[in-house]
Amino acid sequence: MDYYDYSYRVRYGDTDKMGVAYYGNYLAWFEAARTEYFRKLGLPYTECEKQGYFLPAVEASIKYISPCTYDDLLLIRTSVSELKKSALKFEYQTFLPQTMKLLTTGWTVHVCVDQQFKPTRLPQDICSAVQVYSLLQCPQ
Amino acid sequence: MDYYDYSYRVRYGDTDKMGVAYYGNYLAWFEAARTEYFRKLGLPYTECEKQGYFLPAVEASIKYISPCTYDDLLLIRTSVSELKKSALKFEYQTFLPQTMKLLTTGWTVHVCVDQQFKPTRLPQDICSAVQVYSLLQCPQ
Amino acid sequence: MDYYDYSYRVRYGDTDKMGVAYYGNYLAWFEAARTEYFRKLGLPYTECEKQGYFLPAVEASIKYISPCTYDDLLLIRTSVSELKKSALKFEYQTFLPQTMKLLTTGWTVHVCVDQQFKPTRLPQDICSAVQVYSLLQCPQ
Amino acid sequence: MDYYDYSYRVRYGDTDKMGVAYYGNYLAWFEAARTEYFRKLGLPYTECEKQGYFLPAVEASIKYISPCTYDDLLLIRTSVSELKKSALKFEYQTFLPQTMKLLTTGWTVHVCVDQQFKPTRLPQDICSAVQVYSLLQCPQ
Repeated sequence: MDYYDYSYRVRYGDTDKMGVAYYGNYLAWFEAARTEYFRKLGLPYTECEKQGYFLPAVEASIKYISPCTYDDLLLIRTSVSELKKSALKFEYQTFLPQTMKLLTTGWTVHVCVDQQFKPTRLPQDICSAVQVYSLLQCPQ
Repeated sequence: MDYYDYSYRVRYGDTDKMGVAYYGNYLAWFEAARTEYFRKLGLPYTECEKQGYFLPAVEASIKYISPCTYDDLLLIRTSVSELKKSALKFEYQTFLPQTMKLLTTGWTVHVCVDQQFKPTRLPQDICSAVQVYSLLQCPQ
Repeated sequence: MDYYDYSYRVRYGDTDKMGVAYYGNYLAWFEAARTEYFRKLGLPYTECEKQGYFLPAVEASIKYISPCTYDDLLLIRTSVSELKKSALKFEYQTFLPQTMKLLTTGWTVHVCVDQQFKPTRLPQDICSAVQVYSLLQCPQ
Repeated sequence: MDYYDYSYRVRYGDTDKMGVAYYGNYLAWFEAARTEYFRKLGLPYTECEKQGYFLPAVEASIKYISPCTYDDLLLIRTSVSELKKSALKFEYQTFLPQTMKLLTTGWTVHVCVDQQFKPTRLPQDICSAVQVYSLLQCPQ
């Protein structure tokens, strides 16, 4: 799987007094997109946690290119662009699906830790299942 | 202590496209107000949890009387209005402090549970320290 | 339409340190459910706002019966249970759809206002399209 | 003013099921810190908006170094590190103030736009009042 397209409908509460989605909401949407990426891969993140693996974010970055607003249906294209021994990098592109207008790009880096927050190797099934594919280096 | 006055500055992200604070945010502000109420009482809620007591909400209710907006400094008057064997009720009034204009009233009910979510008696130190006082029955 | 069943997948960020969905999130989920209720009725709320009608909440109430957690797929059953000249009441029941276990019940009251927050009559097309049906008075 | 130290008490609702503050919350805290930075400068952001200037974020970046949890009192050190014709860059460091343990670093870039989202020059009073100072390039 090169990428997964997650759909999200912008809520009223996601907007701010400028009339557009608040800049702080995208990281939560990216999280929901990662969850569905893992599910699609056959590796639900809930299972990962049951096995004692956690993937907290250690870096996050977003570029806000164009705003969206209430009731917009967003498509958040999500892929894993780097895979290391104990870390992986996700990349995201947010589109308005009708026009494929690009709204934001972003990425997050996650380290694999155990329940005591101690870094540990990524589980073998994640490494085997993930196909590395960069959204951000490809021409848009 | 009859009540505790918690101050909160409305963030940009708290507003929505109507230009006012989103109706869903007040419960989080009430939670922050409860935390400070307990601290003022000499019983930080973190201590409560360390002793194995948790106080999840089982009911919440809000009346929205007048809106507030970005950068408004709110005063959230907070008191315990009922104290039972294993439950307590909090009441809240949100004001603009300059004019004491009333923006919202509300209440939440919390049951005391252990780590397994099993209802249990309220700790004796809470029962001893809390002074029951109703904000909502007093004339405004 | 008696009611509309809105689906929502609980995010990681929706949970709190008790491991369950935070009590303050439900009002945002109810809002998303109302949006879909109106769309299903053929009256998208975005259209309503374009015509100069707004429906801010004036009351909200929730009973928390059983918790939910990360990755739970919720069904939020949503209906209009009262319809007045310039107000309407929504009722909500949150279920885990596999077992139809009831997690929360709730309701919100909304008044119809114009852009200046002045109360006004509900638009005729809403009054005509809505079918009043109470979720909370029916046996569960 | 080299920087402004904004204080924030972590709410219960800010935490997630890992027991720590959710990674998506920091951008909202940075926003609150910017608001206080501007106020301290004598240029409340509300005034800026009244004059028709808005400063939406066009980039945001965070490094998560160490987690924080419920009831932690955070200090968010905030400064303007770059000032251009129509953009400015904010930098942030989040500390636990007792130990000055560094929890996160981050930055955001904001462009000055008018009500129609058209880029415009930064108001002269902002340019005059801001003193450029980089938090992230200084040794920690």
